Amino acid sequence: MRKNSKEAIVEAAISLFNTKGYSGTSIRDIAGKAKVNTANIAYYFQNKHGLLEYCFTSFFEQYIAKIEEGYASIDHGAADCLKKISATLLDFLCENIHLTSFIFREMSIDSQIAREIMATYYTKEKYYLQMVLEKGMEWREFHHLSTAFMIVQLKGLWIMPFLNTNYLREVLYVFPNERYFAKKYSQEICKWIDEVLCEKETLIS
Amino acid sequence: MRKNSKEAIVEAAISLFNTKGYSGTSIRDIAGKAKVNTANIAYYFQNKHGLLEYCFTSFFEQYIAKIEEGYASIDHGAADCLKKISATLLDFLCENIHLTSFIFREMSIDSQIAREIMATYYTKEKYYLQMVLEKGMEWREFHHLSTAFMIVQLKGLWIMPFLNTNYLREVLYVFPNERYFAKKYSQEICKWIDEVLCEKETLIS
Repeated sequence: MRKNSKEAIVEAAISLFNTKGYSGTSIRDIAGKAKVNTANIAYYFQNKHGLLEYCFTSFFEQYIAKIEEGYASIDHGAADCLKKISATLLDFLCENIHLTSFIFREMSIDSQIAREIMATYYTKEKYYLQMVLEKGMEWREFHHLSTAFMIVQLKGLWIMPFLNTNYLREVLYVFPNERYFAKKYSQEICKWIDEVLCEKETLIS
Repeated sequence: MRKNSKEAIVEAAISLFNTKGYSGTSIRDIAGKAKVNTANIAYYFQNKHGLLEYCFTSFFEQYIAKIEEGYASIDHGAADCLKKISATLLDFLCENIHLTSFIFREMSIDSQIAREIMATYYTKEKYYLQMVLEKGMEWREFHHLSTAFMIVQLKGLWIMPFLNTNYLREVLYVFPNERYFAKKYSQEICKWIDEVLCEKETLIS
């Protein structure tokens, strides 16, 4: 067995899931694209669902790690902390653009796996985002605002380019797969944090 | 043939497409749910794809009509015009929440129909949004800004609750199907327009 066959399987699966959909992809397709034997896939992941779960878990483990990494800087101020979380997360999402698109699309469907992610990783994410927003309000950095609606907006901004990649490309001529994009879009979200969340006094000073 | 059987077919199709997916739904399922004969569906829509096209066309005809309705008020100012577009559109999206969710999800996939919508309706939408943003800049209501990135943000805000209905419900306890939601969320988007797009002088005066 090649040393990197596990990675090759995951890469092939992500690419096929993203273009043909989960149910439109067979183990045989994945094996063909990854140039491995179907028994190899069974050895590592048991079946197609095991492979799907592996993709979700490895994605969300890293996703939450990025948020925690950013959250560690909370003592330097809530606005800076939220900007750091956002920049770190966007880099990760852009670097894994095919997996990100596939996962965000799957999360929009009512399924067992989506419910599990919501009850675990997304609840954890909500905890951190809520903490940052509440501390920001307590420290008078942020306006008094509805944390739920701010999370809706912020996550809307994070998710948008990955769920609408073709729209960005074909209609707006913005290319989320280019290096340039993560940086530019990150700046846009920083502006959103400054303008929508922050008290105006903080801005002027 | 019942007078309202066409509507019953469309309603059944939307509900099934949204829960079971387009490819997971058969003409027989739709006929069963709508309590009509499969020949009825063939009479009105030829086949399942005809029915899908009908859903898309009727949705986007209304979608663009809402944008045009709001755009008609451009002479009263760009910020007010954009707020009107947003409020009118959100009412429409919330009133048709199942169809909206289904269509936004389908639009995230690279398909023939998604490409057609982008080349027609979404290009038209871009034209109107760009006009509002450019006039707003010309009239010194808005900052100098990147229209493409502002459209990304605005559309991200519009799409988010409909692509992540379960997340809003299960994690944030925000219920996009309630009457209250369209009004409240519309206010959030007005705030976004005021804070992110508008020149601060305009705000203070």
